[in-house]
Amino acid sequence: MTRLRKHGFSLPLATAALILTASPLLAQSEEAVPALPKATGDIMWLVLAAVLVFFMQAGFAMVEAGLTRAKNACNIMMKNLMDFCLGCLAFWAIGYALMYGESGNRLIGWDSSLLFLGSAANAQDFGLSAFWLFQVVFAATAATIVSGAMAERTKFSGYMVYSVLISAIIYPIAGHWIWGDGGWLAHLGMRDFAGSTVVHSVGAWAALAGAIVIGPRIGKYGPNGEVKPIPGHNLPLATLGVFILWFGWFGFNPGSTLAAVDGLAHVAVTTCLAASAGGAAATFTTWLRFGKPDLTMALNGVLAGLVGITAPCASVSTGGAVLIGLIAGILVVFAILFVETKLKIDDPVGAISVHGICGAWGTLSIGLFGQHAIDAQFWDEADAIQNGLFYGGGVHQLLIQLLGVAAVFAFTLVLAFGVFFIISKTVGLRVTAEEEMAGLDVGEHGNEAYADFTQYTDSPTNA
Amino acid sequence: MTRLRKHGFSLPLATAALILTASPLLAQSEEAVPALPKATGDIMWLVLAAVLVFFMQAGFAMVEAGLTRAKNACNIMMKNLMDFCLGCLAFWAIGYALMYGESGNRLIGWDSSLLFLGSAANAQDFGLSAFWLFQVVFAATAATIVSGAMAERTKFSGYMVYSVLISAIIYPIAGHWIWGDGGWLAHLGMRDFAGSTVVHSVGAWAALAGAIVIGPRIGKYGPNGEVKPIPGHNLPLATLGVFILWFGWFGFNPGSTLAAVDGLAHVAVTTCLAASAGGAAATFTTWLRFGKPDLTMALNGVLAGLVGITAPCASVSTGGAVLIGLIAGILVVFAILFVETKLKIDDPVGAISVHGICGAWGTLSIGLFGQHAIDAQFWDEADAIQNGLFYGGGVHQLLIQLLGVAAVFAFTLVLAFGVFFIISKTVGLRVTAEEEMAGLDVGEHGNEAYADFTQYTDSPTNA
Amino acid sequence: MTRLRKHGFSLPLATAALILTASPLLAQSEEAVPALPKATGDIMWLVLAAVLVFFMQAGFAMVEAGLTRAKNACNIMMKNLMDFCLGCLAFWAIGYALMYGESGNRLIGWDSSLLFLGSAANAQDFGLSAFWLFQVVFAATAATIVSGAMAERTKFSGYMVYSVLISAIIYPIAGHWIWGDGGWLAHLGMRDFAGSTVVHSVGAWAALAGAIVIGPRIGKYGPNGEVKPIPGHNLPLATLGVFILWFGWFGFNPGSTLAAVDGLAHVAVTTCLAASAGGAAATFTTWLRFGKPDLTMALNGVLAGLVGITAPCASVSTGGAVLIGLIAGILVVFAILFVETKLKIDDPVGAISVHGICGAWGTLSIGLFGQHAIDAQFWDEADAIQNGLFYGGGVHQLLIQLLGVAAVFAFTLVLAFGVFFIISKTVGLRVTAEEEMAGLDVGEHGNEAYADFTQYTDSPTNA
Repeated sequence: MTRLRKHGFSLPLATAALILTASPLLAQSEEAVPALPKATGDIMWLVLAAVLVFFMQAGFAMVEAGLTRAKNACNIMMKNLMDFCLGCLAFWAIGYALMYGESGNRLIGWDSSLLFLGSAANAQDFGLSAFWLFQVVFAATAATIVSGAMAERTKFSGYMVYSVLISAIIYPIAGHWIWGDGGWLAHLGMRDFAGSTVVHSVGAWAALAGAIVIGPRIGKYGPNGEVKPIPGHNLPLATLGVFILWFGWFGFNPGSTLAAVDGLAHVAVTTCLAASAGGAAATFTTWLRFGKPDLTMALNGVLAGLVGITAPCASVSTGGAVLIGLIAGILVVFAILFVETKLKIDDPVGAISVHGICGAWGTLSIGLFGQHAIDAQFWDEADAIQNGLFYGGGVHQLLIQLLGVAAVFAFTLVLAFGVFFIISKTVGLRVTAEEEMAGLDVGEHGNEAYADFTQYTDSPTNA
Repeated sequence: MTRLRKHGFSLPLATAALILTASPLLAQSEEAVPALPKATGDIMWLVLAAVLVFFMQAGFAMVEAGLTRAKNACNIMMKNLMDFCLGCLAFWAIGYALMYGESGNRLIGWDSSLLFLGSAANAQDFGLSAFWLFQVVFAATAATIVSGAMAERTKFSGYMVYSVLISAIIYPIAGHWIWGDGGWLAHLGMRDFAGSTVVHSVGAWAALAGAIVIGPRIGKYGPNGEVKPIPGHNLPLATLGVFILWFGWFGFNPGSTLAAVDGLAHVAVTTCLAASAGGAAATFTTWLRFGKPDLTMALNGVLAGLVGITAPCASVSTGGAVLIGLIAGILVVFAILFVETKLKIDDPVGAISVHGICGAWGTLSIGLFGQHAIDAQFWDEADAIQNGLFYGGGVHQLLIQLLGVAAVFAFTLVLAFGVFFIISKTVGLRVTAEEEMAGLDVGEHGNEAYADFTQYTDSPTNA
Repeated sequence: MTRLRKHGFSLPLATAALILTASPLLAQSEEAVPALPKATGDIMWLVLAAVLVFFMQAGFAMVEAGLTRAKNACNIMMKNLMDFCLGCLAFWAIGYALMYGESGNRLIGWDSSLLFLGSAANAQDFGLSAFWLFQVVFAATAATIVSGAMAERTKFSGYMVYSVLISAIIYPIAGHWIWGDGGWLAHLGMRDFAGSTVVHSVGAWAALAGAIVIGPRIGKYGPNGEVKPIPGHNLPLATLGVFILWFGWFGFNPGSTLAAVDGLAHVAVTTCLAASAGGAAATFTTWLRFGKPDLTMALNGVLAGLVGITAPCASVSTGGAVLIGLIAGILVVFAILFVETKLKIDDPVGAISVHGICGAWGTLSIGLFGQHAIDAQFWDEADAIQNGLFYGGGVHQLLIQLLGVAAVFAFTLVLAFGVFFIISKTVGLRVTAEEEMAGLDVGEHGNEAYADFTQYTDSPTNA
């Protein structure tokens, strides 16, 4: 079991003190860290990182809206907004206790004194306050990933039910396995530094379940199964969203040091390089494959690189980061095509490929490119990973990572499938065909995204 | 009188040292804070927080433009830009001296050595530099709130005159009362931690005066007084603006600790929870009331929660924050309807309700939900608030808060009313009906916001 | 030679330690700085500042897209995205070694152990990691400036070649002169604190070369040389971009302290004031000159103020900053007109004027408004600038600054001209007239920026 997660949270009442004393770089930089007041400096860093991660919500909303049609833009805004609003309240009420409570077991956490933030509710535990803020923005990220894969056809009420459940229950349980006190995957030595699997894959596998249950948008597949493109309505907005996500990711990964330690600089660098490599790789892949460099694929390439480096960001060299990003950028292009044309699953923004496939790739990449010496800069020597396959460590770490990827896949897919199935049979998951054609903005919200502009209405997919 | 405001600025030359030694958490965390070099750590935090608050200017611009018509978008951008550009220069030249000068009295501050930033002008007082930066972005926030309520009909030249006056004079005087050295409301024990009243209500009551003086937009009210909706032209942009505002608010409230102290984490958490509760409450309120969850109301609900928690963010528990946000989110829906249909005041973006009504609510809520023990984490024991009504403290604190709300309302409304009245009789406050119909972009600026797009021109409100 | 640059990097292996011990404010604040753990506090500050600067990429993309036509928006997004993706990889592979390697000479740096980030690649030098991150976002800024001046007609493949070369070679060489260890301009005593010349002018003079080589857009100049306006398609987006740039500039300039020192507050204040003054000055200049305050000029005025203050931000008083910004804001209006109507160079976004002319102005302004006493707060007494002309220092510093401006102008223009000329004769620099008329989005990328909206197609410049 990793030192940080174990000691950092063994006693709820001592959490703040322990977050601060159990900082990951302690062993390595005894001489440097003591000079920084652990309490205040670490809290400031963690809150600032959380604020950057929070802003990713805007990024997700812009990417999803930009890559879909104008007639559904308000619905997408509403879903993304409510993902955070309801998810934040749910994670405050119960989710955090299920994820980080230490009275639970290897499969599920529990601590009733952490419901509604426990001692931090009354400003008696500022370390916990900061840590909770950083965790809630992660939970909201997992929740919002699903929105994109189910865009343009999902009933708002049904989506709200799901949104609360993933933040309150699904994400906290999967998170407990890998990040919680004594979670079984943490116990086995799995490494997922900032959440390629915990956050991104959980979101993506839930998205996969949702997309399967709800089925494709009207007009996406022809009578003979041929794929019809449904272009996004605002690619500059989608690009802005990707820049916002990249910006926020500098909180997501470096902030996962959970303390103001020197090593956050290395994490920021690997994050930056992998994103760049992912964007470049996807651009050149589509250029070679289709004759032209496609913007939407370049955007997904950047996100693929970011998702890929999220797990290994503190375990690999800069060269490793570039390779992980490059492979993610190539992978995401073929994954999107595969999901769309072979599996015939309609994922309007490519969320399953970006966050699921590349999340799995990033988690596994630790078993290939991971270096004990680098990882040990962030963890106790005894808790650091073994070298990956390419660094002479054999397949030991790779198999652990694979187990984690598979377990989270199976758990999330089954649970989310059940949730969406029940919703579809009760509250209802899909809007009527009539509403879908007219757009969910009017149907679900009585809004119009762009009231002053004339729009095409003659397209079969844009009626 | 509160310790921070008093001792922190008793001698201009000693300001930097005193900002740092008089940090609000000193009493509570003697043992923790000294480890953080007060000077540098506090300055870094305050500058970073100020930068986040600065970015709120972009949020206000996007919200206001998104909720109004395409033909006025450039004018809105210009007003928001100039609010900051001119306001920044005015607050540098005179505003700061009026707000924080200690040679004044309980009603107005003054210190000629603070004009044009005094000793900080020549880099001799970095603490003052950082504090001024944090204050100027607050002044600009108050100024820019007015823009929304007067959108789509205000003459640019007249608006510029007002904009300078609020940053140079109106805001600094009201601010002095509550935050200045020896201000009379501070002296009475009023608490407004980050400015529900000082910033948001001042802006909103000036907006109310402006909206009354200038009258409604052509086409907003029919001949028999019936309300006609004028939909915003870009709701995704408005949503982006709200996310930016929420993001920036993590500088607004937590930065109001004025120092890098552990308690900033609690402030960040209450801010986050209240915003979420406000967004959720407004969504469900419109859903129940009108049958559909409306995006623009959800956006205003988030802002209502944020404005509401701004005053009490460091005085209430997380549960209190959720309740304050919930109430703000419900309140804002009915307030907007009331202003629009009963008062017949045309406020295109709901600024009066969001910043004024919910600013008042947030300020009063300290008298209900405020806890001495929490507040005392941020202030000297002797300066901390009394418990609110719901915590057994009776109505003492509530009455002080009420007095502050009423005094700032009366002062700002009367002064702003006078300013707008004089402007309307001299420079002119409203564009011609012809220009209003054609749009202010062409009339005031010779610009077109969306030159390549075809737009509807047949609507009576969009001619 | 300046102390920071020299000692800070004399031994690659000791870089981290030296960044931290050689902090610019050491002399002035011996008593204050030691309390902040240099390592961690400085790294945190530098990484956060770098993250803010990174976000400027989004700002540049939105400004450029907003000020040009809808049919080229995807191409602009792609160029800006790839500027960073490819530039980041190029600067990692080679650029950094050319800029900061100390085995080179006064004209070019070199250190093969810094290729691919050297010791920092394996997380052995976190100070270098942080410093590299801050430097790479600067390199990417220089690269992306060029994009705007060549917008709407440049072949994507040709642009990619240039983009790699500027980040890998052109920028690092010019940067070495002024910021590198022993660069000849640094040796002479030139001051360019945050890069008015190093970053902005290098980008702008390369942009000038590119705009000359590629020629104007079809339809920009009539048969008799008369100028035809080609309005931007999304001015709210451009305004958002300017706000994002301003926001990011608070990392650009204050972060150039390279350490968490109190003086960063003064830099933030001068930056804020100059931007405000620039925006106000450009607004009133166009108002007086053309009868209406123009939004696009106001936006360029803000950027002009920011570019202008970038070099002198740590050498002048707040009054000096306001004057520098005011002059930049006036200058940029006439410079844009001069470039467009006299030089007949088609620069769609005004990049040459904003970043080149105002970059030169800002660099020279140190020779006029610079104060030794202020500069000495950030540098060793012996390394601080001499007083400028207006402070009794004569023309000594002004002539050094002038030499630097001229040298970088000549070097960049000639080298970039050669690069673009060779590209135009090999890969090709310009798209076909047919493609230009139809838009580069379809021609280069097979994308459409706004698929759901109807657009004007009858304009001669918008066919």
